[in-house]
Order: sequence, then structure tokens, then C-alpha cells
Amino acid sequence: MSFPNSWTTPPRQPEARFFEQAARRQSVLTKPTGSLGKLENVAVQLAGLQGTDTPTLDRIQISVFVGDHGICEEGISAYPQAVTAQMIANFASGGAAVSVLAKSLGAELEVVNLGTVSDVEPDLPGVIDARIAPCTRNFVAIDAMTTEQVCAALNHGDAAAQRASDKGCQLFIGGEMGIGNTTSATAVACALMEKNPMKLTGPGTGLDIAGVRHKAEVIILAIQRHDNDDDGQDAMAVLKAFGGFEIAALAGAIAGCAARSIPVLIDGYIVSVAALIAVRQQPDIRPWLLFAHRSAEPGHQAILAALNAEPLLDLGMRLGEGSGAAVAVPLLRIACELHNGMASFTDAGVSNKEGSHDG
Amino acid sequence: MSFPNSWTTPPRQPEARFFEQAARRQSVLTKPTGSLGKLENVAVQLAGLQGTDTPTLDRIQISVFVGDHGICEEGISAYPQAVTAQMIANFASGGAAVSVLAKSLGAELEVVNLGTVSDVEPDLPGVIDARIAPCTRNFVAIDAMTTEQVCAALNHGDAAAQRASDKGCQLFIGGEMGIGNTTSATAVACALMEKNPMKLTGPGTGLDIAGVRHKAEVIILAIQRHDNDDDGQDAMAVLKAFGGFEIAALAGAIAGCAARSIPVLIDGYIVSVAALIAVRQQPDIRPWLLFAHRSAEPGHQAILAALNAEPLLDLGMRLGEGSGAAVAVPLLRIACELHNGMASFTDAGVSNKEGSHDG
Repeated sequence: MSFPNSWTTPPRQPEARFFEQAARRQSVLTKPTGSLGKLENVAVQLAGLQGTDTPTLDRIQISVFVGDHGICEEGISAYPQAVTAQMIANFASGGAAVSVLAKSLGAELEVVNLGTVSDVEPDLPGVIDARIAPCTRNFVAIDAMTTEQVCAALNHGDAAAQRASDKGCQLFIGGEMGIGNTTSATAVACALMEKNPMKLTGPGTGLDIAGVRHKAEVIILAIQRHDNDDDGQDAMAVLKAFGGFEIAALAGAIAGCAARSIPVLIDGYIVSVAALIAVRQQPDIRPWLLFAHRSAEPGHQAILAALNAEPLLDLGMRLGEGSGAAVAVPLLRIACELHNGMASFTDAGVSNKEGSHDG
Repeated sequence: MSFPNSWTTPPRQPEARFFEQAARRQSVLTKPTGSLGKLENVAVQLAGLQGTDTPTLDRIQISVFVGDHGICEEGISAYPQAVTAQMIANFASGGAAVSVLAKSLGAELEVVNLGTVSDVEPDLPGVIDARIAPCTRNFVAIDAMTTEQVCAALNHGDAAAQRASDKGCQLFIGGEMGIGNTTSATAVACALMEKNPMKLTGPGTGLDIAGVRHKAEVIILAIQRHDNDDDGQDAMAVLKAFGGFEIAALAGAIAGCAARSIPVLIDGYIVSVAALIAVRQQPDIRPWLLFAHRSAEPGHQAILAALNAEPLLDLGMRLGEGSGAAVAVPLLRIACELHNGMASFTDAGVSNKEGSHDG
């Protein structure tokens, strides 16, 4: 198996023209300049990325990537590992947060099963069998993935982007589920950004203070082991050393969407780490990304800063599954509707600042 | 004309029972406790206020109160006063931000014209003729309103609440439009909270630094004049001294909704000042209020703090019209859908923290 083209080739850059046209339109709508705040930026960004004067978000795909983590052997999660497989069934039967959200948004929801320790019922609706192994390896002792496993996960992500492209989706949301994956993501983030795990490690699904401390110590130990290697902060090496199957697949999906000119709405902590990997691999991916929300997970801010990202929402969410991105979709749609539907000063016969009609 | 009952009588308090039941339900849904952040609080608040296990927001009324301000004589706005009347036509023809938003949400939109200096075309669709006078008086020289005018405006607000009740609305949003009304609102806020206008005054629709300074000096002068009175920080006296027709009507609508057990979603700076007046008048109104967004207007934070309010959104919006509240409605709806639609740990067969099924 070879790496996807989207991983080894920079994506095309969006044209400046549609961004400029959208910004001009925002300046003549019947409102004080800038008074719709971030909704103006979102509308301009979507118009520019979609290459249109009237951006819309009718067709959206949400792909939730799921995988188990060998690092769970170190006792770093508040929940038992069996929950990963159980949640796949919950996604499929419509009871999970992202299931409710996808239905509400009219979005396509698919679950990509990259491997779980507990068995998953076969042929669940909307669940794609993409199993690589029951779980990654315990990265305190050894690299979490082999190169072949990283390659497989990237390809599974790229395939999700291809499905979104085939369906004509105007926005892609990647979500994730995997007990232990904040530990994996934090190790990746600390290695990529050379940050102290004591500063970035957080409670995940709900560790107490002693639990967070233990989790940080596990990450420090793992990074020390990896520091003996000579591949340093190379994105691929870091992904292989500490990543989860779902984190690698997310990075592949993000790259795959950028390669196919599909804007990606980035969810919270885990997906932002995957975005950081993808952007380190191909910096030209960055313009294709919008950022939905600031997670309550304390390390998220550092990752957002590294990506120069200012998310729309700050609701104290920390669920994963792509739920924070899904919650932001109505705001993106509203931003488009305002951009497309408001009258200009001239059209409405409304005086602009200082009495001039400058529409 | 007498003051509305809703202004002179405290509203009934919502029952604790439904808040408690909703909080219990949130704790057994298939997610780590608290991981939906503020969306959990919103769902619990709406369930409690609506007195139901399954809160919904199908029927929403948005009432935009419009009035002109005598204080415009002092040159405190970036836009000409004619815009107030022009925007009424823009609301009616569907070109304004709140028009686009109301249509998108399927909300009832009405515009209450309390008086404009420029003429408004008669019989515009959705515009209610509630004219009190062409504008308030210049409050540097004299009280902005007479007691009769305050009373009329409060009654117009109460009538909007009655219409929302007649239509079975599950949420009320008050909006406003009136060139000069951030000056009026800032004077009210500074007088009620004994704050320095140099600290709370902001650019409104877009004043430059010199303009903001002049606006603050106008407010200081006006408050000094009022300080010679002996009615101090009494909400009614402050409203009469500095308020606009639309601010008084908003205060009346907020009180009217609480009296009719309709939750109110508070918009930005101006509406929050109206809420502060209403809560000072009847403190039992406070539990009926939800807060949509933090305005970019710098004084908003102090008003939110005085109301002990933590809004959902912080998008840098500063448009008025009720637009910030309208933008938050999809998040409230999503909060309800998650509350009503997610599976519990027991239903889904998902293990809870530490392996226990405690659903």
C-alpha cells in the first residue's frame, strides 16, 4: 500500500478573487461595517473556498473515526476500554450526541471502525469496516503504529474524503471516539510543538487531579523514549510513535478534503491535533480549515495557537465525536444566509455612515 | 393609562421540580458528565422554565422595538437619524439581518414603531404603529421621557408579550433599532450601576476615538444634571431620565414575558440594559432570562456582570435588531434535541465511568 496522493502532494490554493468579492459584498450590506463579527469572516471564507458568490452548506458529511489505544494499559482513562466498541453501536442506533446532531443538520453520518479491542456487532448501519488491528501498541514501550498501519489509516481517511467528494459535500467534519485518545493526542501535540506534558495534559473524559498527573507522567516517559530516535519533530515520525488509528485517519481525511477542495470544519482537541499533523505535513492545507470550537480540554489553546486558529464557539464542550463542529454548523449556515440574503444600502434605500449611499 | 400589571407585580417563580429532573437526565446520557458544556445548562434551564421533560423551541416571536432619540442633537452617532425610519422599511421588506434570521428560524417577526423623526411609509407588513412621539427629548437638557411616555412604552412592550403568549410562543426575543440608542443605554447603565461613562462608553455603530470621547462627555454632563434630583438609582427614574422609547418597551416586554411564563433570550448591549432595568424593578424576573451573546460593545461585560449572566456566544457581533439572540437560537434548539434524543447509558448498553452501568 502506498501513501495517498493527498498526503504527498500539496493541495491547490483557493483563488483570491472570490474572497475579495465576498469581502466587498459584506461592506455594502445594511449593517455597520464589521457588526456581524466572526459571521462575516466565516461567510467570506466559505465563499472563497467554495469559489462562489453565494456560499451554501446543504450537503455535509460527518465521518467519525474510531479506534482503540494500547496506552490504556497504563490506566490513563476514566472509562473502560469496552466503551469504544459500545459507542460504535450507539452511533449506529442513533443514541449518541453526534447521531442526534447529524439528524438535526440533515448531514450524512458514517462511522469508520479502525479497530477495537472488544467485538463490534457486524453489519451495523452506517459503520464502515476499516479494521487495522484491535488497537495500537502501548507507546510507552514501542511505537504506537507500524509504518504500514499509519499508511493504512491515512488511506482510510483519504477514502472518507473521496466519499464526501463523490456526494458533492460542501463541508467535511471529522469526529473521533477512542478511549485513551486524549493521551495519544497530547503526546503527539507535545512532541510536535516541544511542549511540556505537565502543561498540556488534561482530564479527558473526567480524570481527577491524581489521574491527570499520572497521565502526564506516562506521556513524559513515552516522549523521553522517543527522544532517543533521530527523526525529531517530523510529523510522520511523531504520528507513528504516539498516534492512534483514528488520529492518523483524521489527518488523512483532512489532507484528502483539501486535495479535493472541500472545506473542513475542525472539531475540538483530538481533531485539532490531527489537523496540526496534516498542516505540518502539507502547510498548504491550512487555508481549507475552519475551526468550530474551543474545547474545555486545557491543552487545546496551545494547539489552536500553533495553527493560528480562532474558533467560533467556546461552550465548554469536551465530548469529541465531532460534536463541537456539528454544533457550529447552524452558525455557518446562518453566516451564508445573511451573506446571500441581506439587502445592500443602495437596494434598501438606507443611508450609510455619514449619510452617503456608498452601496 | 396605568402601568402594566407585569411591571408592578412580581412574576411567579418556576418550579424546582423540572430543573431537577432535567439535571438528572443529563447525568445519565451517553457522554462524560458535563461534556456538552453550556448546552447542558441551557437544556436544563429551558426544561425548567417550560415545565416539561422535553423542552422544544418550535414557536418563537422576535419583536423589534424602534424609536428615535433626542440626544442625537449632540452628534453622538456615526449614522444620520433618518436611518431609523429607513430601517423599518428594510425590516418589513426582508433585507435586514434580523429579517433574514427570522425567516431562517421560522420565527414570527414583528416591528413595533414607537416613533421616528423621519416619516415611515404607512401599512408596512409586520410593522405595528405604536408611535409615542417623533423622538425622545435631548436628555442633556431635560428628562428624555415624561412619565406618561414611559408608561406608554412599557404598555407597548407588555402588549408584545401578550401577543407572544396568545400565539403559544416558547421563547421571546426582543430586538431594537434607534440611531443614538447606545448613548441612551450607556447613560442608563452608568446611572443604575454608578459606573464612570469614560469606562462604559463605546463606538456603537462605528464612532472613532474622538467620537467616543465626545459621547462619554455628553453622558457625563447628562448624569451630572440628573444627580441634582433626589430619586437616585431608582430604575423608573433612570429610565425616564435617559431611556429611549424602545428601551422602555423592551423592559416592559421582558417583564410581560416573565409574568406570562415565557422565557426571554436576551440579545446584546441595549437589550441587556433593558433587562437590567426590568430586573431592578422586579428581581424575580431574572430566572426567566437566558443570555445569547457578548456584544463587542465594551460596556456590555459590566452589564452582564450586574445581571450575573454568562452568555452562550462571543462572536464580536454589535448589530442590534435582536440579531445576536436570533443567531443563538439554533444552539438552544440543538441543546433541546440532545437532551430529548440522546440514549442513556442503560438504554444503549454503554458502560459508565469505572465500568458501572449507573443509568
